[in-house]
Amino acid sequence: VESAGLHLYIGFTRCKLAMCQPSDESESVATQDQQKHDRPSSSKSAAEKKVNVNEDGNFLSFAPRPSLFSSEHPSNSYRGFVNVLIILLLMSNLRIVIQNLYKYGLLINPWHITHLGKSDNVCLAFSLWFYIFSAYGIEKLHGYVYSPIIKILHWTNAIASFVVPWYAIWYFRTDPSGGIIVLVFATTAFMKIVSFFLVCDRLRTEAKSKDKTFKPKLRQLLYFVAAPTLVFSPRYPRTAKIRWGWVLRRICEFIGIWAGIYVVARQYVMPGLQNTLVPLENGSFFLIVEGLLKIAVPNFLIWILGFYSIFHLYLNILAELTRFGDRQFYKDWWNSTTLGYFWRTWNLPVHSWMVEHVYMPLTNRGWRKSPASIFIFIISAIFHELIVSIPFWNFKLLAFGGMMLQVPLIELTKCLKGSQTGNVIFWLSIMLGQPLIVLLYARDYAQGLYGPWTDADTKTVGKILNGFQEALGWSIAANLTTVAPPSMPPSTSAVHWKVLDRFYKFMH
Amino acid sequence: VESAGLHLYIGFTRCKLAMCQPSDESESVATQDQQKHDRPSSSKSAAEKKVNVNEDGNFLSFAPRPSLFSSEHPSNSYRGFVNVLIILLLMSNLRIVIQNLYKYGLLINPWHITHLGKSDNVCLAFSLWFYIFSAYGIEKLHGYVYSPIIKILHWTNAIASFVVPWYAIWYFRTDPSGGIIVLVFATTAFMKIVSFFLVCDRLRTEAKSKDKTFKPKLRQLLYFVAAPTLVFSPRYPRTAKIRWGWVLRRICEFIGIWAGIYVVARQYVMPGLQNTLVPLENGSFFLIVEGLLKIAVPNFLIWILGFYSIFHLYLNILAELTRFGDRQFYKDWWNSTTLGYFWRTWNLPVHSWMVEHVYMPLTNRGWRKSPASIFIFIISAIFHELIVSIPFWNFKLLAFGGMMLQVPLIELTKCLKGSQTGNVIFWLSIMLGQPLIVLLYARDYAQGLYGPWTDADTKTVGKILNGFQEALGWSIAANLTTVAPPSMPPSTSAVHWKVLDRFYKFMH
Repeated sequence: VESAGLHLYIGFTRCKLAMCQPSDESESVATQDQQKHDRPSSSKSAAEKKVNVNEDGNFLSFAPRPSLFSSEHPSNSYRGFVNVLIILLLMSNLRIVIQNLYKYGLLINPWHITHLGKSDNVCLAFSLWFYIFSAYGIEKLHGYVYSPIIKILHWTNAIASFVVPWYAIWYFRTDPSGGIIVLVFATTAFMKIVSFFLVCDRLRTEAKSKDKTFKPKLRQLLYFVAAPTLVFSPRYPRTAKIRWGWVLRRICEFIGIWAGIYVVARQYVMPGLQNTLVPLENGSFFLIVEGLLKIAVPNFLIWILGFYSIFHLYLNILAELTRFGDRQFYKDWWNSTTLGYFWRTWNLPVHSWMVEHVYMPLTNRGWRKSPASIFIFIISAIFHELIVSIPFWNFKLLAFGGMMLQVPLIELTKCLKGSQTGNVIFWLSIMLGQPLIVLLYARDYAQGLYGPWTDADTKTVGKILNGFQEALGWSIAANLTTVAPPSMPPSTSAVHWKVLDRFYKFMH
Repeated sequence: VESAGLHLYIGFTRCKLAMCQPSDESESVATQDQQKHDRPSSSKSAAEKKVNVNEDGNFLSFAPRPSLFSSEHPSNSYRGFVNVLIILLLMSNLRIVIQNLYKYGLLINPWHITHLGKSDNVCLAFSLWFYIFSAYGIEKLHGYVYSPIIKILHWTNAIASFVVPWYAIWYFRTDPSGGIIVLVFATTAFMKIVSFFLVCDRLRTEAKSKDKTFKPKLRQLLYFVAAPTLVFSPRYPRTAKIRWGWVLRRICEFIGIWAGIYVVARQYVMPGLQNTLVPLENGSFFLIVEGLLKIAVPNFLIWILGFYSIFHLYLNILAELTRFGDRQFYKDWWNSTTLGYFWRTWNLPVHSWMVEHVYMPLTNRGWRKSPASIFIFIISAIFHELIVSIPFWNFKLLAFGGMMLQVPLIELTKCLKGSQTGNVIFWLSIMLGQPLIVLLYARDYAQGLYGPWTDADTKTVGKILNGFQEALGWSIAANLTTVAPPSMPPSTSAVHWKVLDRFYKFMH
């Protein structure tokens, strides 16, 4: 239908009369830049007058312009699609909320909060003050007692501050949720005590070289214990005053978020975990993936809300109350393109402590950067394992293993530095790896399999790998029919089998 | 725990030794701007040397810095969270894909494509050429026949080009999916014919005033019919050549996208519609909402893919084949903050035709902008109704009503111009309004209720409104228990009732 006789006039005069169209100005959330490109400048007064047609008999003029989605278009703004993503996500999950309420009713119970206040755990938390005051007492011995003995006393005290609560939680089998909180506080106490005497040592050496003496004051130690940092310093940047209204608002947010976390965990994660335990034993690959994906979304919500409430709200509240000035508790780990960047930036208090007391001393002794980094990562993995394993009575090194699996991933993602692919891989490893670990802990906790690794575990892994292999081998249909979905009620499974049968025939 | 004796030293020297930390440079997808703010410049060579502690006994220095999530932080980049949204959405829906396959098996059938090729619809589509050639013939009568008679002939021909296929589809009840395509082509033919003779009239008047004559050439009309525009012009901006490789890639994309649309419609939308028909009759509000939300996501996917394939791919393929230069077939409607902007920008060929042949003539005759805008909106609503109602044999003015409901919304959203809230409201009205209309059509089509409005309809609406009222009145529990979810199999409903009973007791 090509009409060859028409002239080629690329560069046709552009949109002379486009001002006649109803004015669209600033009705889009696009950048000003794009709007300028799409719309020629128009004088408002001209639009009021009667408009005549152009030489082609049209009010509107044609112009050579590319489509907006085309790569030839110079400036695209897709801001509106971010809102679409949020709405789609909310719609998908609002549906799940309604389904969940129909299926389970309300599972939440405000009395569950008493789990956290069990007297054994509370006593253990308060006992941590003993080690802190001991550290101050041991520090006071300087000048009276031989220095290496003081060092031994300090390390004994510090290690006891973590090991004693750890052993007590294991021995008395206290409530797991409270137990984890106690162990986090115990780890904090351990790190603060170690930092306290190591920095004091440095300052004493420095003071001695200038023929002065250094003695830490008790109020310095107490301020350090209260302040949101793990690295001791005799002085910190401070703010001028406490904004009490600000503190109150942050506390309300904190309480609200934790109420939300509890609801999500009780209503969505726990039933999801229970439903996935059966396919996990049967090793039916697709049902495990489906269950994992069902847990992954609320699990991520808990994780991100937990991060915000602890690393933003809790630490900022502490900082405001202690007028602590340095509030860089995390960097923009959500933009990570390598797993290494994530692990260095999501928890700056611990990372700074590691750099201060492990990484820097090691590199100053001639260690290279890379092994020193891996070394602090291993220490971090050990602490994760210790904090999680004891309250849940699980000795299969799942947390440790999960973190150590990250080491090769950290190396692999190094080549993706700065790319969106790197960011997506980082998120996938976090968002799928974490619910998998949670699922494995839930399985062992529910079945009382405390470890070490048993035959049942090996069989489950074998079944899963087998299912995965079958799936990879394109025998999806065979896999679906040989592994019966176990949670189906009897009446529907007849229909179900019929459908699968049809599906099976279709595939062959 | 406040230690009042410490100095206030806001403005503490900043991060002197931060270079000792493992280098984080360019491992984040954040803007360069933010990275600069967070990280002081560091010389690589310095990091290799042995580093000494500062005067506070620390390797790292503290500095007064706000947290990144805090409103005090000057530059935040949340780019990584956009990836999170995409991943969460894919995970939520991958789960639904697995569930769907387990529940329904494969519903797709490649032979369904033959629906589109039914001979009656194909004949109707080809018959449109008759009206196009007639228009050229009528135009040739100028000089031989009295001008008003030619005008009447032209309008009769144009209206026939739409009404004859419309009547034929109704009379023969051809396949609905093919019928809609035929009616879209018929509408296109109608608009092109009208534009052809109106613009020719203008050019003839103009030529006469210069003592010249104007006669359109057949090849001009044929080029206009093939070109992706609805406004006739004797000349258009053209491109230099056809990029055949580019055309081939766009055609492959087009076929792939429509295969995807078919799968989504057959596998997700149709079962979702069927499942929602029962609660729609029972008027159980929450189940209707749940069903709507379940349809909304695949429905949106179809809609956005359909938009892209027609307004970007199809029209660009046509433009490339006809070397048509003006490819602005849509503007950035996804960034709309008012519904008005959306309706003016999502379909520029039709909008330009409306401006050219309805809006401009009206405003030139002294109409104000606002009534002229509403007038073209009403014409547009009538065409939507005509295109949808006949193939689906539905005469309840649902499409027309749905579009007319937008008029007050357009007025309401005017005050939200430029805001994110406006964009969210725009998306919600599109993403929830559309599946509702689709659901209502499906209901009437499935039950053979062709209209006009019956008692059954009124009762359904009454039940839904009643359910909504109850829900609003906080009697959620009562509503859930009095309206039994109808699609539950017998064996599970016992459990279900037990849970609801517990839920009911909990609420009182």
